[in-house]
Formats: sequence, C-alpha cells, structure tokens
Amino acid sequence: MRRFLTDRARRAVAASLRGATRPAAPSPAPAAALSRPSPSAPSAMAAYMARAMSTSAAGTPPVSLDTINPKVLEFKYAVRGEIVTHAQNLEQELHKNPESLPFDEILYCNIGNPHSLGQQPVTFFREVLSLCDHPALLDKSETHALYSSDAIERAWQILEKIPGRATGAYSHSQGVKGLRDEIAAGIAARDGFHASGDNIFLTDGASPAVHMMMQLLIRSEKDGILCPLPQYPLYSASIALHGGSFVPYFLDEETGWGLEVDELKKQVDEARSKGITVRALVVINPGNPTGQVLAEENQKKIVEFCKNEGLVLLADEVYQENIYVEDKQFHSFKKIARSMGYTDDDLPLVSFQSVSKGYYGECGKRGGYMEVTGFNADVREQIYKVASVNLCSNISGQILSSLIMNPPKVGDESYESFMVERDGIISSLARRAKALEEAFNSLEGITCNKAEGAMYLFPRLHLPQKAIGAAQAAGAAPDAYYALRLLQATGIVVVPGSGFGQAPGTYHFRCTILPQEDKIPAIISRFKEFHEKFMDEFRDVSRDEAPTGATIESGGD
Amino acid sequence: MRRFLTDRARRAVAASLRGATRPAAPSPAPAAALSRPSPSAPSAMAAYMARAMSTSAAGTPPVSLDTINPKVLEFKYAVRGEIVTHAQNLEQELHKNPESLPFDEILYCNIGNPHSLGQQPVTFFREVLSLCDHPALLDKSETHALYSSDAIERAWQILEKIPGRATGAYSHSQGVKGLRDEIAAGIAARDGFHASGDNIFLTDGASPAVHMMMQLLIRSEKDGILCPLPQYPLYSASIALHGGSFVPYFLDEETGWGLEVDELKKQVDEARSKGITVRALVVINPGNPTGQVLAEENQKKIVEFCKNEGLVLLADEVYQENIYVEDKQFHSFKKIARSMGYTDDDLPLVSFQSVSKGYYGECGKRGGYMEVTGFNADVREQIYKVASVNLCSNISGQILSSLIMNPPKVGDESYESFMVERDGIISSLARRAKALEEAFNSLEGITCNKAEGAMYLFPRLHLPQKAIGAAQAAGAAPDAYYALRLLQATGIVVVPGSGFGQAPGTYHFRCTILPQEDKIPAIISRFKEFHEKFMDEFRDVSRDEAPTGATIESGGD
Repeated sequence: MRRFLTDRARRAVAASLRGATRPAAPSPAPAAALSRPSPSAPSAMAAYMARAMSTSAAGTPPVSLDTINPKVLEFKYAVRGEIVTHAQNLEQELHKNPESLPFDEILYCNIGNPHSLGQQPVTFFREVLSLCDHPALLDKSETHALYSSDAIERAWQILEKIPGRATGAYSHSQGVKGLRDEIAAGIAARDGFHASGDNIFLTDGASPAVHMMMQLLIRSEKDGILCPLPQYPLYSASIALHGGSFVPYFLDEETGWGLEVDELKKQVDEARSKGITVRALVVINPGNPTGQVLAEENQKKIVEFCKNEGLVLLADEVYQENIYVEDKQFHSFKKIARSMGYTDDDLPLVSFQSVSKGYYGECGKRGGYMEVTGFNADVREQIYKVASVNLCSNISGQILSSLIMNPPKVGDESYESFMVERDGIISSLARRAKALEEAFNSLEGITCNKAEGAMYLFPRLHLPQKAIGAAQAAGAAPDAYYALRLLQATGIVVVPGSGFGQAPGTYHFRCTILPQEDKIPAIISRFKEFHEKFMDEFRDVSRDEAPTGATIESGGD
Repeated sequence: MRRFLTDRARRAVAASLRGATRPAAPSPAPAAALSRPSPSAPSAMAAYMARAMSTSAAGTPPVSLDTINPKVLEFKYAVRGEIVTHAQNLEQELHKNPESLPFDEILYCNIGNPHSLGQQPVTFFREVLSLCDHPALLDKSETHALYSSDAIERAWQILEKIPGRATGAYSHSQGVKGLRDEIAAGIAARDGFHASGDNIFLTDGASPAVHMMMQLLIRSEKDGILCPLPQYPLYSASIALHGGSFVPYFLDEETGWGLEVDELKKQVDEARSKGITVRALVVINPGNPTGQVLAEENQKKIVEFCKNEGLVLLADEVYQENIYVEDKQFHSFKKIARSMGYTDDDLPLVSFQSVSKGYYGECGKRGGYMEVTGFNADVREQIYKVASVNLCSNISGQILSSLIMNPPKVGDESYESFMVERDGIISSLARRAKALEEAFNSLEGITCNKAEGAMYLFPRLHLPQKAIGAAQAAGAAPDAYYALRLLQATGIVVVPGSGFGQAPGTYHFRCTILPQEDKIPAIISRFKEFHEKFMDEFRDVSRDEAPTGATIESGGD
C-alpha cells in the first residue's frame, strides 16, 4: 500500500492532521543571544561536544542548550530555583555527615508546602479519600470501626456521582459532572450568586489551569498579560513559556502592597503605545508573595477597569481561606462583579482555586479548579479541547476539590472535630504570621508589611552598600546573596525578592509562615543571630552613627 | 515608591523576569486562514459580536476565535472529539427518555479507559493507596481486619520513602526519590540492565511527559518530529500545540502494520530537503491504534537509525504489559539499545510508561513516568525546570507507578490473589481481541489485522462508492460518517481512522477491546446487524455481482 502513495498525498495527510498550512516561522533567536545563559554552559558544552563528536555518527549532539526551545531556556521559576537546589545538596551533606554544618536540619520556607513542615491532613478529607480509593471497604461492617459515619456516607455519595463508581476511570475532561456541581453549589453558598458546574474545569492543582489560560490567550510576544510586581513566578514563567509579553504593574509597598487602578491604567497605556495587545489582568488575592487582602471597593474598581479595557480578569484566589486579620474578608471577584450587576455578557472572568492552600494544604494531591465565566460558546469549546489533551485531572484531586468546597456541616458526626482541626490550623497560622512579622520589624535594616492573608511574609531588606558590593563581587543579586548566606548559616530556605520582581533598587525575600508553631521561636532566634552578624559584617559605618546605606535604600518609601 | 520608578527601570524589571530580549515574532496567520474553521463559527460569532457590541465599552469582545492562539484552534484530538460529544448528548437523551433510541446504553469503545467499562481495580494496589491516603490507620489494630498484611507492610515502606511521611506535600519535581529508585529497580529487573532513579520523571499520566519533551525539542515549525501513521493523536496534537512540524512515516498495513527503516529514512530525507530539522522519532510499541508488537530485530534497526541520524528516540511503551500472542514479547528500547552496546553517550532515549494501561488500567489516577537517558547535564536541568513549573505530579499516582513496577512477589500474602486478578484480566483481553478481530474479518468489506498487543483493533473499511458519496454529501469523511451511523444505530462509540491518520483513500476505525467479556457477543451481533444493513443500503451493485467499490478501495493492498 505504501508504494502507491504520492508525495502530494503524504503531505495532504500530514496537513490534515496538523489541520493547517501556516507560513514557516523565522528561526528564534539563538540561545547565545539570551540574557541569561547558564553560567556553566561554555565548559560543560565544550566537554559534551567533544564527547558527542567522538561518538555520534552525525558529528553533532542531537540535543544541546543551543538546539532546545529558547523559551524553555529563558523562563525562570525561583521558588524551585538555584537556592532550593543548593538546599537539597546541603540536606544530602547533612544526611551523610550530620556534624558537617552549623545546623541540624534544612527548613524549607521557600514554598507554600504545609504538610512538608509537619501540618497534619484534615481527618475527614483523608477518610473520604481512603474509602474512595478502596470502595470494597464500604461493604464491610469492620469499616465502621475505622472511619467516621459521615465519611462513609460521603464516600457513598461521591461514588454515586462517578459513572460506574469507577474512581480508576478517566472522567469527562472538565472533571466528574457531579463533583463539578457540588463545587458550584459551594461557590454559590460562598458568594450568594449562582454558579454552574458547566463552568468548572477541574485541574491537577491551579498551575495547569493558569497554563491553559495562557496557552489560549497568547498568540505571540505582541500579546501582553498584566501581572503584579511582586508576583508569584508561575505567571512570568507561564507567559515566557507561551511566548507572550509580561506587562508589570507595581504594588505599592508603602500602602501595604496596595493595588491602584491608576497604575494599571498607566501600564496598559504604555504597553499599548508599544504595540502590545493587553489580553488579561492577573490579580492574586490574597496576595502572593505579598500577603495583602484586597478591599471590596478596590476590587470593584478593578472589575470596572477590566470591563472598560476589554481585559480577561484572571483571579488567583487560591488563598481564599487564609485570612488572618479581623478587619478583612475574602470576596471572590465573581461575587464582586455580580454584585455590581455584571453578568456573563459583561466580563470574561476566571477564578483559580486549589486544594494545596487554605487550611487543608494538600499540595501532594494536585487538585484544583477554575471557574470560567463570560466566554462565548466557541471559545469555551477551545478551552475544553485544551483540557482534553491531558484527558482529565486525577480523580482523588477532583474528590478533594469537592470536599473543600463542601466540608462537614453542623450535625455531621465529624463536624466538631473538623472545626477544631480547621480553626486550629488557621489561628496558628495567624499567630505565626504575627510572630515572624514582629521579629522581622524588630531588626535593623528590615521592614515588613503585615500578612493579612496567604502564607507568606515579604520583608524588605535595607542592605548596606558594602553588602551590595559583596554580592556584586560574588556575581549575585544582593537579595540572592543574602538568602544564600542565610541558608549556609542557618539552614533556613527563603526565596530572594528578585525571583518575584521588586521595585528597582529594593531588596526583599519571601518567607513562608509554615514552620510548626513550636519551632517559630528557635527560627526567629537563628534568623536574628544571622541577620545581626550579617549587618555587623557589612555595616557601612560604626554602630553609633547613622546607617547611611539603609537610609539611601529606603529613601523612596 | 512607585513614583520614582522610571520607564526604563520598569522595562528592566519586566525584562529580567522574562529573562530575555527577543525580537517580536510576526503575527501568526489569522484563524480565518486555517483549513479547519469551526462550522458553527460564522453565525455564533455574529451573534456574539452583536451582543458584545451592545455591552462592552471597548466595542469588541475581549476573546473570540479570531483572537485566541491559532495553535489551539488548529490542533485536533479525535479520541475526545465530535463523535464523543455526540455520544454524550445521546447519553443524556437516553437518561431523560430511555425509550427514545434503538439501544439502551452508550458503549464507549473510543478510548482505552478499562474501568469505565467495568474492569475492577487490582485489590493490592488499591489497599496500599487507601492506607497511604489515611496513614493514621496504620497505627490501629482494626486495620488488619480490612487490609492484607503485605499491603500494610508496603504502605509502611512507601511512607518511609516520603519525607516526613507527608503524602500531602509537594515532592521533588521529578517525584519522590525513594519511589523513583523503586521504579528504576523494576526497570532493571525487567530489562537486565542498570536503571537510575535520577533518570525518572514522575508525571500525571504519560501525556504531560510527552508534552514536556515536545516543549523542550520544538523551537519552530522548522523542527519536525517523526511519528507513525496511523498514530495516537496525542502526538499530532502536542506537536501542533508546540508549533512544530509533524513528519509522518507510514506503517504497512499489509505486513501487520510493519515499521520499516527504509520508510523512516525516506521520510527523514524528504523532510530535510524541505528545510525541516528532524529532532526525534516517536515509536509506539505495542502500537496504538494498530496493536502490533515490534520484533527485536526491527527494534535494533530503529535504534541504529536514530543513532545514525542524530534523533531522539521517544518510545511510547505504555502498553508494555498488554501482549496477547505467544510468539511476541515486549522489549523496551532501552534494553535493545544497551544490548547493542550503546550507552548514555550514544543515544538520547526517552521511555514513557503509565498506570492507565497494562492490566491495571488506572486511568483516573493520572500516574506515569518517563525514563530519560542520553541527554547531557545542562539539558537535563532544563527538563527539570519544565517539570518544576507544575511543582510535581500527584503523590497517589507516584505511589501507584512504584507499585506497578514492583507488584507482589512469590511468598507475599497477596501474591496468589494478585496473580489471579492480573492473569484474569490479560487473558480475558486476549480472548476479547480475538473474538472482535474474527467478527470483523467475517464481514463483507472489512479486513482487520490481529491485535498482538495494546487495547485496540484498527479494522479497515472497504466502503462502497455510494457510501463515500453519501458521506461527501453530508460533509463528513467517509469513516466519520460510518462511525456516526454506527453510533446512531447501536450506541457503540468508535473513533474514525481519519483521527489517527491513514493512507490516502483508505478508511478505518479504532475500536477498543475493553467492553467486559460477557458483553462481547451482544456487541458483535449489534455491530454485524448494523454493518450488513449499511452495506446493503450503499451497495454499488447487487449482491451477486463483484463489489466494485470495495475492489477499487482495496486495490493498493
């Protein structure tokens, strides 16, 4: 059969699978022209080339840094970046030789990963997951000795929602319909406005949902996405990977990381003047890494702005349960928009939620969803198609997503113990946030806004000029230099502010509030000791005189 | 602080986050120029435009088919395509009004989703998952009444491998190191050659792993990936989404879907003559949708070819446990390469494995891995970075991946019952494959190769000209028309061959062998009845004369 295939026919088949005839794109800029070549690239490359030349018949290595997708080479992801790799190496060293370092454990404060630092899972959620994983248990009387009755009841209810009770089957690419309906009911109860399961796309955590939206919206570098600075680097990474333009707007550290619409407008106009089509606005509320909780009036202005400017509002609301101050409350952007009278016809709006955050903190389960409203049916079909290319998200994560949006209620057997667990975690997180914030603010050369929500503090470092000079001499950003020294002295892992973006000339780091409460005093004292020594080492002038460096650095505040 | 920021500083921050200064790409071709505009687009778009004009201050809808990423618009994914959407609609109709259709259930033979059709999970695997989800059970004596002792023991072992025993924490972005080591030991035991946990990347099923490799390798449409035709459309979809060129090679239906190196060479040369840089060869073994199992000698030639041509070998080996014939065995490409004396220095080779296939068929768990060998350290770091952008794969899927590569052994309490379950599933699949193949081959106008492995048959339809004409009149591909008519008459969902690619002028469909064994006779008789009526309806000449259309169609065989 192969024999009678003409070239033309082959091309036709290939084109029909590809579905298009597009002009060939020009070759992208070679890796060497990028601003961040790997420092180790030249020598490692030379060695590899030499080896490859000696072994490959074609004479060139099939894959090298020069021949991979430059967008991959380009993007950065600081929360799992160099400092974390260094920490993992130290951890291995510590494992081999426990006496080799001035500390006995690595404390990962780089990432919002509560269970890795000892937070216990919520019992009810895990009971239900355990039963759904092994439904045969539901038919056995012994099961009642091990599981609460409402967990057993809930597992039954969930299995009834899953076609064939098959937790081992691919679901609909948006997720199991019955679970989506349950999530929608939870959203409606939270907001007081209608929500539909048809608008829910269940995903393996929030990150894949963000990538899906970037993949949909970004056509070329001429498409821009407005993102806060500082920002969670998922956004800059995803925009870079999909070849778009990152259009920053600055949060105002002076006003507790305020988000001002004037600033949004200014940045959109500036981007447009450069020929960028601004497609969407990313808002992270509560803020990451900045921890602020937006006020309702502010949110209304943001919604209005998106509507007027024709932007998609991408609302990262994964910290919606993490609120630590009395005078602030979480309001979803959808609730705000609906309360202003805006319907599906007025505004494309996507809300991201995850099982990894909140009081549950189930990062390893990779559950989450996006609620997609305000897109027309044709575009929705395309979002569905993108979702279908990975078939579906994992069913345990789907079940857990339904549980966090519909936890035990008054009268359920687990209700009281559930509330004790939940409130215990949230109130402890609030105390930890406050203790760390106060500790940071008590130190020379550090100022720190309050964590009203989320899981992080983002203290500002007012570094002496001498420290900045030492960092430059070491070829590192000043905050990266500080974070590395902190790690080497204490085992505490924080992420340099440069990984999130910060106003030029300012330096910060992000530190989670997640170490268990009984460890906080020791962390604070280790941190203080390091910081004071660091400041003494690099002090520009003697302790009795004014700290000139710090004053210069904070001049803009 | 915002106030003193100059434009230049803002740009510097944005550029540092993006990490590069690239020239702006030209605007991609508008959606209208693509070969496959949505048939419903014009009228739906007009309605949407009218609505958007009346409500949006900017006067244009923020997102429409004209303004989304054309690569998204372009790609197709037939296994979850139109026919499946149509089936889902029929299912809803059937639910509302059970008497409305000539059948009482939809039989999803479109996708390899065994549990959705009644296959039961393997008990031992589910016991371990259930215990790992709720580790508090491990401390209770009542647990022994519900779980086998080796499942309890295994759960302990697995928790010991997970830092802090925290199944709710993000793991290393490649997956939990101890689980990767266990998988590597399973690979080494399978192949008789060394494997390392450092080379394992655990992923949410095999699909995200395939996307990661495409994202790494494809820079522009000038980069090509060699893929079989027929192929699993994940490959064409992923290549289209990442903007590369699909370079097809044809499997030879005549020789049982043979893969010939002459054909590979011819296609590579032809692609190169058009300026395409061929980066990688995709081989699916056992084949999907074609079900063949490659012979060892053939695999050696393929390895040699990749080495000589400087190609990455992407080996889709997710059906490695699905072998149904005595005279064929699965050999991993890594085993073949190592047995030829090739080391890491000779050949970049990636093997994909998944918990969704085999005898386990745990599609909903989204577990899988790729074993990555033969890349230099710099490139490996970039693969790690791509993995890190979604943080990690789900831990239950990671655990299950370790279990399938290290199932119960002789002497374990579960061993015997495990073997009964495993062999029961595999031998039943073999019988189903044979029954369906024989049924297809017994019909006028259908020829069907044997399913030596995997989960599918890919029968060829020798359609009468009159049927082809009817399809054309309905605006459908002939095999899509046939599949739609089959669905409407019987509720059986198959995927038209055009979704996988096929030699021009030939028509096929893919049908899974997954309906439970007791349903196979009824499916065969429903299918036969439909097919005979269809042939009668469209017969070009009377039954007594030669079936001209079929002869013409099969002339190339």
